Amino acid sequence: MDASTTRRILRVTGMGRDAADDRVVVEAPVELRLRGVPIAVLMRTPGDDADLALGFAITEGIVLGPHEVAAVTPAGDPDAGDRWTIELADGVTVDPEQFRRNLYTTSSCGVCGKASIDAVRVAAPAPPLGPQVSADLLLSLPSRMRLVQAEFARTGGLHGAALFDASGGLEASCEDIGRHNAVDKLVGRMALRRWPLGETVLVVSGRVSFEMVQKAAVAGIPVICGVSAASSLAADLGDELGLTVIGFLRDGGFNVYAGAHRVS
Amino acid sequence: MDASTTRRILRVTGMGRDAADDRVVVEAPVELRLRGVPIAVLMRTPGDDADLALGFAITEGIVLGPHEVAAVTPAGDPDAGDRWTIELADGVTVDPEQFRRNLYTTSSCGVCGKASIDAVRVAAPAPPLGPQVSADLLLSLPSRMRLVQAEFARTGGLHGAALFDASGGLEASCEDIGRHNAVDKLVGRMALRRWPLGETVLVVSGRVSFEMVQKAAVAGIPVICGVSAASSLAADLGDELGLTVIGFLRDGGFNVYAGAHRVS
Repeated sequence: MDASTTRRILRVTGMGRDAADDRVVVEAPVELRLRGVPIAVLMRTPGDDADLALGFAITEGIVLGPHEVAAVTPAGDPDAGDRWTIELADGVTVDPEQFRRNLYTTSSCGVCGKASIDAVRVAAPAPPLGPQVSADLLLSLPSRMRLVQAEFARTGGLHGAALFDASGGLEASCEDIGRHNAVDKLVGRMALRRWPLGETVLVVSGRVSFEMVQKAAVAGIPVICGVSAASSLAADLGDELGLTVIGFLRDGGFNVYAGAHRVS
Repeated sequence: MDASTTRRILRVTGMGRDAADDRVVVEAPVELRLRGVPIAVLMRTPGDDADLALGFAITEGIVLGPHEVAAVTPAGDPDAGDRWTIELADGVTVDPEQFRRNLYTTSSCGVCGKASIDAVRVAAPAPPLGPQVSADLLLSLPSRMRLVQAEFARTGGLHGAALFDASGGLEASCEDIGRHNAVDKLVGRMALRRWPLGETVLVVSGRVSFEMVQKAAVAGIPVICGVSAASSLAADLGDELGLTVIGFLRDGGFNVYAGAHRVS
């Protein structure tokens, strides 16, 4: 299935109304299974589904890293591509009933920002000291991300996530109608190359919320940038874990909410 | 707890770098309980939490409408305000183990767009025939929504949802760091006034995805507008259920993806 499709629409402006063909981003459900047992249904843009399944399993704390996964394979009708099963490595056991959809619900001390942060701390590796990144390099990243994200340009309906190395080289780029899915696809794809992801910079097309920083933290990514706002809890999580959290990376400037020591 | 907070940040531009005070949107977890049993932890912006709990219970299909809910009351420490319990009306029974987080996972025929749409069809009332809304009225709504959404102006970090009547009168407006939460707060608040919500127009600050149309459909809202893109499955759901789905409502124009008969 393609990531976008053509749809007949009515376009209305001050000049009048006309039927038109519009490119629309495709949204469709995918079922993820763990050793054959359904664990989640995600609404996602088709494509990179094996990456999505692996990244989701890692960043949601279902597995502790790619070494715990033997393979991600199609389940059900392989032509449909809407069911994927995560096969665990020998000796790894995960009780599908035990893990929770959200890491921050597992804390025994209850529900609060502190408990949420502590839960991520347990699941995330210690971040690397670096990288040191210059303001000029950071400012160049959003436009470079947009250059490679073709479907956004066609539909205007996708979230993007891109990973850059410390000198600004593009490592990977993913798109999805869901902002969390875009990051999970990226983490899943990169996890097959190396783990954890080391001295890298994650750029996302939208806001930086707690869950975006959580996903980056679990993947070992030390610098997280959004072109839009960061939340209070995202900044707190960055402070507590020693991550760099940047927001409003656009229009020739940015705000550093946590971990300013990595910005040179 | 306030919806935004002041945070000391580093502001970097081409002119240099300076410490500054920034207004940051607050994100914090809230636990929702059903008759005392925890059923969900949401990351939300504090405020209107009872509305959020009621709206979430309705639009996720946990209850069939506000008549099934007796009250939403604080649980745990009332000063903390981070736990709310939904008390059911006399004679209403819901097994917390039975309902699913997402309506579209309950279909017996498996996971596909058609099954997702059918699942919403079961849970949603038949939409009203109207309203008839003019292009001029629709074009005026986003700027009127922004006028009343004060926290977005302060932080740039919130999603908004607003409900208008057929003549453009504002019925309610809600904000949250989570786009789904903003709609759930709105539905919860309105559900206490009347049910279903009738000949109204919902405007959301972002994209129109399947889940946004699902929530509107379950609330009986016939017209859903986003200032950004609509997805393929959102448009399909609108077609199948007879709802009007509008995207890119900005810059003096909009696209009608489904239900053009309501646009006059």
